[in-house]
Amino acid sequence: MKIGLLGMGTVGTGVLKVLSENQEKISRLSDDELKVTHAVVNDVNKKRDVDVSGIKLTDDVEELLDADIDIVIEVMGGIENTRDILIKLLKQGKHVISANKDMLAKHIDELTETANENNVTFSYEASVAGGVPIIRTIESSLNSNDISEVMGILNGTTNYILSKMTIDGWDYERALAEAQAKGYAEADPTNDVEGIDALRKIVLLSRLAYHVKVDIDDVETKGISNVDVNDLKTAKAEGLIMKLLGKSHFENGKLEISVEPVLLPESHQLSGVNYEKNAVYVIGNAVGETMYYGAGAGSLETASAVVSDLIHVASGGHKKNIVPEEKVEIQAGKSTKNYFIRTENTAGEVNQLGKDLKIISEENNTTFITPKISADELNELEKNLNIKARYQVIGVE
Amino acid sequence: MKIGLLGMGTVGTGVLKVLSENQEKISRLSDDELKVTHAVVNDVNKKRDVDVSGIKLTDDVEELLDADIDIVIEVMGGIENTRDILIKLLKQGKHVISANKDMLAKHIDELTETANENNVTFSYEASVAGGVPIIRTIESSLNSNDISEVMGILNGTTNYILSKMTIDGWDYERALAEAQAKGYAEADPTNDVEGIDALRKIVLLSRLAYHVKVDIDDVETKGISNVDVNDLKTAKAEGLIMKLLGKSHFENGKLEISVEPVLLPESHQLSGVNYEKNAVYVIGNAVGETMYYGAGAGSLETASAVVSDLIHVASGGHKKNIVPEEKVEIQAGKSTKNYFIRTENTAGEVNQLGKDLKIISEENNTTFITPKISADELNELEKNLNIKARYQVIGVE
Repeated sequence: MKIGLLGMGTVGTGVLKVLSENQEKISRLSDDELKVTHAVVNDVNKKRDVDVSGIKLTDDVEELLDADIDIVIEVMGGIENTRDILIKLLKQGKHVISANKDMLAKHIDELTETANENNVTFSYEASVAGGVPIIRTIESSLNSNDISEVMGILNGTTNYILSKMTIDGWDYERALAEAQAKGYAEADPTNDVEGIDALRKIVLLSRLAYHVKVDIDDVETKGISNVDVNDLKTAKAEGLIMKLLGKSHFENGKLEISVEPVLLPESHQLSGVNYEKNAVYVIGNAVGETMYYGAGAGSLETASAVVSDLIHVASGGHKKNIVPEEKVEIQAGKSTKNYFIRTENTAGEVNQLGKDLKIISEENNTTFITPKISADELNELEKNLNIKARYQVIGVE
Repeated sequence: MKIGLLGMGTVGTGVLKVLSENQEKISRLSDDELKVTHAVVNDVNKKRDVDVSGIKLTDDVEELLDADIDIVIEVMGGIENTRDILIKLLKQGKHVISANKDMLAKHIDELTETANENNVTFSYEASVAGGVPIIRTIESSLNSNDISEVMGILNGTTNYILSKMTIDGWDYERALAEAQAKGYAEADPTNDVEGIDALRKIVLLSRLAYHVKVDIDDVETKGISNVDVNDLKTAKAEGLIMKLLGKSHFENGKLEISVEPVLLPESHQLSGVNYEKNAVYVIGNAVGETMYYGAGAGSLETASAVVSDLIHVASGGHKKNIVPEEKVEIQAGKSTKNYFIRTENTAGEVNQLGKDLKIISEENNTTFITPKISADELNELEKNLNIKARYQVIGVE
């Protein structure tokens, strides 16, 4: 099997390393030698820390489109232009593996349809939660279940920042600066800290779990850039831990979906997932609660998922992708929920609202936790308060 | 596709329920209707809490062997006789799915070889960790990795007992009685509490992860029936939590493997896995540390795994099983480890052994934690002590 590589950055380099280091096992499983023969890169003369002998490097995508290859691995990023190239490759009858969540969140339906029409495989395990094998798990292992809920820590940068704030008591700015110094956050951290990266991933997971088309523009998304470390301390004293979750709930054909920082009990499996790690929690009607944990990013870690897709294709594991037919109706907040609320009002004023509100702190502002209330009841409540912060609380009774 | 069911106990009933409840999705994914047409049961007249209309019930296995079916699901238990039946079925060209870990730990090599020879699928996702999809994950998702380590909480009964002892301070006898009252433990709990059930599962997982034959009789196995709740309290005060782990480490062609109660730091992912839940921790050279968590037993939970195997077979996902060729050499304790030791000796006597031993309690007995030492050094140390309890400590520096 001859492989073409689109991009040779962090993940592309990792793919070459994994293929070389685990060569013997991979060949045995694939019943074939897997050889990268072509790679499209920005700079063919760049010095690389991986052996590229035997690989034809080019900066011209056309060369890849003309080449005699069986499978293309896309790890170069980009959205519209990349989509165009992949559609061409699929139409040529080439199998395609992509790790490009930004592009997939927008074009997955078209790409999987095109793959089906041309009887080739399109797979994308590496696009969500890096090395954690969540795509194939939902597709091939939890497929016996009607899945009702998916929620995950899907972004390592924000999980690192929140962990530093929760465990070490750092404020947001200091934790972000450290994440940038460690290479977990980019110079412009917007996509991570505002929840956009997690949004793309929960859209991909929800589509797969419930077999519905999800329009990414319809999803409510809140990041962590306004999180006050003092709220984390107040919550922690109550046994609650903050995580940025992409989460969705599917029932009676309707979808609730959001990305937002939420509070979980310390005993919840997701609460122990710290620093740059990712984890996805899935509930099915037969299996109940399950969780999948591991590295959400990194060169070899992400390559682990890409190469597992590669072995799958090379060993003849082609399977039609499920392409959902209908766009799902997204509904906000029909179910009742607990909320953590900090307000400028006095404890007396809060108590007067007479709604079984549990005051947990009166330092500076008044902080309280509501009983389970609907979105309408929440709106009603908030009319009478001068809100400074509000988070959904999950998993408490 | 016509399905035969061998056994209609807890898991068999669950399979029928899952097939019926999630029928629409399962048919869509299988591109076929999956119909159980025959079932071998002990008592054909027994009243059942699941719809068996349309299923030919029989107490005669020969009827199943003569029937026109495509796939057989074996959920009846038993070892030698069950092996004989499954070998016959595979030779008839029938796909076989089994949840029978007791039988598999002994006969997996022969069964997978026979399946390969007859070009049919033999699958057994439900045999380890119930609903947690760990078999297919190792086989299809972590296959890009050289795996170096597998460790898991593989038995819900013992995890329930240890959780009650750790969290609620109950002693072993009371926790066992409660587990029996709740139906988690059998009247004769030997297989669970002495680690035999976990042993079978870690043997199956290690075989799959490292592609080696493992002789179950060579594996050192210790259960929890002698665990003193006071040791758990002493450990907990040091931030250590006890779990019964099946664990194995593979390096340079040699295997370390055991089942034993070990102590883990509270921050370890496995420490938060409580009560009847199971979890498996796998380390690969590309992906790093990963974990898979969920229900290790239960009717629908285990059926979730059986039916996912069924969809896999029905949708044409046949793949040759890897049959390892060589029996692996098992070596005990070449690596150095930390130990938690309780001894009748005084603190002064322990200190005199001058080995950087950290005394953590002097109540009744003296309890200390060793630095990382080899098995030989441990033996030498123990010669000079009157040991009352000893546990390996994992993940501390």
